[in-house]
Amino acid sequence: MTGTPASPTAPAAFTTDDYRARMARAVRAADAAGLAGLLVAPGPDLSWLTGYKPTADTERLTLLVLAAGRDPVLVVPTLEAGDAAHAPGAPALTLRDWTDGQDPYAATAPLLDAGGRYAVSDSTWAVHLLGLGRTAPTGVGFTALGEALPMLRAVKDAAELDRMAAAGAAADAAYDEIRNVRFEGRRETDIAADLAGLLRGFGHTQVDFTVVGSGPNGADPHHEAGERVIAAGDTVVLDFGGLVHGYGSDTSRTVHVGEPTAEERRVHDVVREAQERAVRAVRPGAACQDIDRAARETITEAGYGPRFIHRTGHGIGVTTHEPPYMVEGERQQLVPGMCFSVEPGIYLPGRFGVRIEDIVTVTDDGVRRLNTTSREMAVVH
Amino acid sequence: MTGTPASPTAPAAFTTDDYRARMARAVRAADAAGLAGLLVAPGPDLSWLTGYKPTADTERLTLLVLAAGRDPVLVVPTLEAGDAAHAPGAPALTLRDWTDGQDPYAATAPLLDAGGRYAVSDSTWAVHLLGLGRTAPTGVGFTALGEALPMLRAVKDAAELDRMAAAGAAADAAYDEIRNVRFEGRRETDIAADLAGLLRGFGHTQVDFTVVGSGPNGADPHHEAGERVIAAGDTVVLDFGGLVHGYGSDTSRTVHVGEPTAEERRVHDVVREAQERAVRAVRPGAACQDIDRAARETITEAGYGPRFIHRTGHGIGVTTHEPPYMVEGERQQLVPGMCFSVEPGIYLPGRFGVRIEDIVTVTDDGVRRLNTTSREMAVVH
Repeated sequence: MTGTPASPTAPAAFTTDDYRARMARAVRAADAAGLAGLLVAPGPDLSWLTGYKPTADTERLTLLVLAAGRDPVLVVPTLEAGDAAHAPGAPALTLRDWTDGQDPYAATAPLLDAGGRYAVSDSTWAVHLLGLGRTAPTGVGFTALGEALPMLRAVKDAAELDRMAAAGAAADAAYDEIRNVRFEGRRETDIAADLAGLLRGFGHTQVDFTVVGSGPNGADPHHEAGERVIAAGDTVVLDFGGLVHGYGSDTSRTVHVGEPTAEERRVHDVVREAQERAVRAVRPGAACQDIDRAARETITEAGYGPRFIHRTGHGIGVTTHEPPYMVEGERQQLVPGMCFSVEPGIYLPGRFGVRIEDIVTVTDDGVRRLNTTSREMAVVH
Repeated sequence: MTGTPASPTAPAAFTTDDYRARMARAVRAADAAGLAGLLVAPGPDLSWLTGYKPTADTERLTLLVLAAGRDPVLVVPTLEAGDAAHAPGAPALTLRDWTDGQDPYAATAPLLDAGGRYAVSDSTWAVHLLGLGRTAPTGVGFTALGEALPMLRAVKDAAELDRMAAAGAAADAAYDEIRNVRFEGRRETDIAADLAGLLRGFGHTQVDFTVVGSGPNGADPHHEAGERVIAAGDTVVLDFGGLVHGYGSDTSRTVHVGEPTAEERRVHDVVREAQERAVRAVRPGAACQDIDRAARETITEAGYGPRFIHRTGHGIGVTTHEPPYMVEGERQQLVPGMCFSVEPGIYLPGRFGVRIEDIVTVTDDGVRRLNTTSREMAVVH
């Protein structure tokens, strides 16, 4: 089964100016944090900053060097310089290629300032960090980019928000269709395959997860989809997402095979109320932990506090899980353009679970949901 | 098109004792190299040492700590401890799990000795290496595993050689079939898709590359497969491989659409002779560079020296490219059980290329080819 092919119209591609602006923004953020610059290996930070996605992350050094007062430089293996030159951000930086036999770390060293502290992208290979450490000028130090500048990609601009909205709409279309397929008598993996087909049919170029947690499996938030055959009377948690135009979707709804019991309905109502109150708490200047607290208080008041066993949400963008995190202790203030999930749940071990999740974005005066399908407990068959 | 489904019979799974022996061997090698131990994050080294392959490499620390005089310890996130406990090597090590909110680096620090130098697996994330550096006892230093112990996985034992032989046989079966498909009038990508189907049909669980370089595209050793339509008179380089039972295949043959010209035949003969002489040079105690020299001298004597533009070979095992490398300057001696490619080539820009490649293994008294299909220039249609 696949959804009606209805790929969203492709948005205008990001321009060289978009990437130039992102690199400039990163340099300013680094400077404000007392860093000399950023060293970015292949991964989501590199593709967000430059549009360059090498086909594979390898033992050959590819590294973007960003520093105040210097033009951006991308160090690349000669073999890959042609590909790198075609990246949309390439005109905004200088390519410096190196060939097998040369020491790429020695070639990078002159780009670093003695005594400077540099933020290194989290997934940079250790062999590269050790190579840089060996050749860097005196007193150069390194810190993890994700710790030093956790909010680097958190605030989305208008073009990014268009993509996030398209991803949310595609996930919503998939949910509206999946409610019509047969659940009873089929395996979780069958529903998961249907969901994946629908996500692709509605424009996802990549499907990252299709959780189907039926009955007791729904009580494990880490369950994916298994061989369990879904039966009448099951509560079923659906949690699905992937990429549309390079940006992520991530939505959960909980459905019921036939009419729910009073208890199932009550638990679902509590989660829905918790999600509603948490979403209403989203506004510029609120702290991330306030969103978690709004959801947790609702669930705790209803007596299910110990059954809400995960944080309330996570940022989303070119990756599915990224800062900011909606969790107790996170005092980061919300800023217009941030996008994240709001996904409280209640998990009754051995029985069933309920989770409701929307992606939201912070607006100038509050919040906008990027998922708008019904949050009622849908009855499926 | 797919090959006759003829998956090789699955070999007996590696046992806990196999993994225990590998870990002990790694500790001895580290000790001999003056290292205090090994720190191994998810990747080929971890799966080779323990049989554990986490589904994703993430920002959550998973790290194997091996050191002389200590039992092996695997630090894992609590959420993944269940999966890790099911790895075949798990009974030979101690799991130490950590939960969100704890500092996994502080939890690892007591496993390290002050002043010790530790080899860190090459693809360990920088955020982990920096975390370890922050919490490690006084004077702990780090070095890249691939530089400190390049031959860690190079010598294959009998059970590994069985898998390497199965991979070679599966690739050979695919080559014998691909010679019968139509080449003329079809695109390179069509032949590549046929090859991938055949590799899967003959037992590959993963296809990593299917290079089809026709006519002038064959003169670029980095060409993969494109839209070019293959014509009568084309020389076509085929280079294909993937994984069978977790171990790699990698084979090249050069075919011709219809009868080759005298020059095409001559170039092919030179490459075949170079490959033959290089394979004959393989024996315990020979240096890696001797294998490269044997191939290069043959090609140079024939006047094509400047057209042989890459090294002669690379090691292969659980990854497709690994030490030892058959390249000038590599003095590493060959040891029985090492497996690597022997793949000289001649590339005539704008015209055509020829490459012939077998995987070979060093035996007690010489060499054994793991690819045994004809190295004559096959005529295809």
